[in-house]
Amino acid sequence: MASSATSPSLSFSIELSSTDPCRSRSETSDLFLRCQNRDVKSLKSSFISPASLRLNRIGSPLSRCDRIRSSKISANSAQVMEAQSPFKTNSRVPTIVDVDLGNRSYPIYIGSGLLEEPDLLQRHVHGKRVLVVTNTTVAPLYLDKVINALTHGNSSISVESVILPDGEKYKDMDTLMKVFDKAIESRFDRRSTFVALGGGVIGDMCGFAASAFLRGVNFIQIPTTVMAQVDSSVGGKTGINHPLGKNLIGAFYQPQCVLVDTDTLHTLPERELASGLAEVVKYGLIRDAEFFEWQEKNMHLLLARDPSALAYAIKRSCENKAEVVSLDEKEGGLRATLNLGHTFGHAIETGFGYGQWLHGEAVAAGTVMAVDMSYRLGWIDESIVKRVYHILQQAKLPIAPPEGVMTVEMFKSYMAVDKKVADGLLRLILLKGPLGNCVFTGDYDRNALDETLRAFCKS
Amino acid sequence: MASSATSPSLSFSIELSSTDPCRSRSETSDLFLRCQNRDVKSLKSSFISPASLRLNRIGSPLSRCDRIRSSKISANSAQVMEAQSPFKTNSRVPTIVDVDLGNRSYPIYIGSGLLEEPDLLQRHVHGKRVLVVTNTTVAPLYLDKVINALTHGNSSISVESVILPDGEKYKDMDTLMKVFDKAIESRFDRRSTFVALGGGVIGDMCGFAASAFLRGVNFIQIPTTVMAQVDSSVGGKTGINHPLGKNLIGAFYQPQCVLVDTDTLHTLPERELASGLAEVVKYGLIRDAEFFEWQEKNMHLLLARDPSALAYAIKRSCENKAEVVSLDEKEGGLRATLNLGHTFGHAIETGFGYGQWLHGEAVAAGTVMAVDMSYRLGWIDESIVKRVYHILQQAKLPIAPPEGVMTVEMFKSYMAVDKKVADGLLRLILLKGPLGNCVFTGDYDRNALDETLRAFCKS
Repeated sequence: MASSATSPSLSFSIELSSTDPCRSRSETSDLFLRCQNRDVKSLKSSFISPASLRLNRIGSPLSRCDRIRSSKISANSAQVMEAQSPFKTNSRVPTIVDVDLGNRSYPIYIGSGLLEEPDLLQRHVHGKRVLVVTNTTVAPLYLDKVINALTHGNSSISVESVILPDGEKYKDMDTLMKVFDKAIESRFDRRSTFVALGGGVIGDMCGFAASAFLRGVNFIQIPTTVMAQVDSSVGGKTGINHPLGKNLIGAFYQPQCVLVDTDTLHTLPERELASGLAEVVKYGLIRDAEFFEWQEKNMHLLLARDPSALAYAIKRSCENKAEVVSLDEKEGGLRATLNLGHTFGHAIETGFGYGQWLHGEAVAAGTVMAVDMSYRLGWIDESIVKRVYHILQQAKLPIAPPEGVMTVEMFKSYMAVDKKVADGLLRLILLKGPLGNCVFTGDYDRNALDETLRAFCKS
Repeated sequence: MASSATSPSLSFSIELSSTDPCRSRSETSDLFLRCQNRDVKSLKSSFISPASLRLNRIGSPLSRCDRIRSSKISANSAQVMEAQSPFKTNSRVPTIVDVDLGNRSYPIYIGSGLLEEPDLLQRHVHGKRVLVVTNTTVAPLYLDKVINALTHGNSSISVESVILPDGEKYKDMDTLMKVFDKAIESRFDRRSTFVALGGGVIGDMCGFAASAFLRGVNFIQIPTTVMAQVDSSVGGKTGINHPLGKNLIGAFYQPQCVLVDTDTLHTLPERELASGLAEVVKYGLIRDAEFFEWQEKNMHLLLARDPSALAYAIKRSCENKAEVVSLDEKEGGLRATLNLGHTFGHAIETGFGYGQWLHGEAVAAGTVMAVDMSYRLGWIDESIVKRVYHILQQAKLPIAPPEGVMTVEMFKSYMAVDKKVADGLLRLILLKGPLGNCVFTGDYDRNALDETLRAFCKS
């Protein structure tokens, strides 16, 4: 018989009005409030972005609902521009997405050729000394370029670098200490800047090192993978793994800026590209149905590395992430929804061994499991399940955990140390309602979780 | 020939008006501004503390200057009460000093028998699980008492503990990992509370662990040494040492409360007691001449562990620290003045080997060196130099670095990684003007530093 655990007060649901942002008060009032909250934020974000500023300048004063639509027009405008991308006409003018966190706000610059624009980086360097943290794969490709961008026309800046081994299995305390060793041996002081050049592992480690070195120095993110460009470089989550779990030691620490040079994706391996797309799919599922539909139509372009399609997917992902982070920096609740599929996925990464699967691969399998469980709970239609399977297969991502590796007990054990556990209760992000809606909750039938685990595990 | 380095814009001086807080505008206007800034803060602090609240309730509306005087009366009131201490009449009523940091504000409870007041601790416990971090010396003395205080009358709270080896030489990453291991193995989640039970090393390590575990859980400080009670437990500086320097890795992370049970000092070794007094002397020198004069008269009572004298010294030290931290949490400038003697002292600790000398012993020798240098610069009268030597000798503290250990080159090398170095310039806290005044500056004659180092080092 199904038993339902009681929910802690933190559980809530997120509504994204993909068809009509101005839903009426005749709907449940708390849903309305949530929708309203989101809309106010979109509005703010839309006024910051240059595209919508232009819209506002040429238009007449807008009503609230008009303004929300203008925000949507502004988002759509990039989509329309696919055939005539702004990156093609003027490759060095970045798109800017702002992360609004009061006095810790910062811009995300997105564009082609940005590493050839020294001013963009240099305006965010504090002090005269820079430590670039990168890895053995990325250093031969982009380190010289980044050093040049940091020092070009500015002889007062001196740059050191520390090159770490590449891979999730090195995201540990021993490797982190190498960053501190280098900074201390080189006598870096508080007026220094750390630069993370690489994927998610480098960004997380460099950010945590920056947060803890002398109790905090400034840092800049230069993500070079889709995964880092659409997700991990934005929002200030930094940290390292522990043998018993992913990202269990770290800090919330925001960068000075994020610089996404889409040209760095030219050298990205296929598997890494697909891995990043798992997070792109996530944004669509949890809060942006329209973006999900765009992905269904354009996944082939993303896999073919069409520059405009990639730039659009990165921009729209960053906008979604920036909005969530601005509303809930320290993951009081809303921000946890960005972890769709991650609780299952982290268990796979820990159980399978860090680095066996890429993060996005584990997240893809984890997303399928979360969607399966949502369906078993009766919270979503079968059509959504099918669409999720289809889009992940299109993206060449796994749709189940690695065969013959994970047991139900392993999942339960690794999921028990997840950061979303509260007073012993495991809270999950699950889909609920139409496409683009999710809940973060501990209030679900435990049998559904057990059934999902059994369905995806070896006996 | 003397050469003077140029000062960065961060250098400034601190004035404490020990004779007349309402100095007139006829004095230099920037001094006035600084004084004013401090006074406004004292005022705020005085309204928060119960003692001054009483004063305000019975008095008529006060002018600004009257109110500043009332703050001083409030401070003096504790002094007057020496013969009839509130701790004697009602031992379990704590004195409360508030650290005012907006939504991160917290109280410091000071008093005798506070560990026998479960409510005081339990009101600050978040979640149902507590990890007490302590060491092999303190655990046999107070761990059971603290566990009892945390759980008495509240069976829903479960407590785990991790007992670290005792001493500054264990304030490192390997020992810190033991805290993470314990928390993760015990499946602690974000709604947990870490409790630091011990001296400065335990407080710094537990605080840093709390800041980084799952990117931040709540923590409580229960300092059991004078050093921790008057200084290190207050203000949120946490961290560990690196082989090349003290406290180079850490975080600014504020506790939920600080609970100072003065009874824990009954078991404190003589040398530890004296070590803590070095920080008490510091407050007098940098900003509280009146307190320094009180110490000159009462040092024998502090050494004899007179409960009232100790409680007063702790309270007044915490008030000074709380005020500075409230004005400059992240050490933009003012807070650095709390490091008088520490740059020299940290070099001694690193050069001599962590744990050879207690922190306060190194700070005492470092204070003598900073005072010597201030005198060589012509910034203070010889009388202050003599009084510093005298009071530190009274407190049974060293007045020079360990004999035959430190060379000039060692000092320079270790001081170069100090957190107060900015763009290569070593900034120091030096006394300047009448007793109770200091500056934090990189604008000093380098020859004076060289002369001081030569005077205190082996050749």
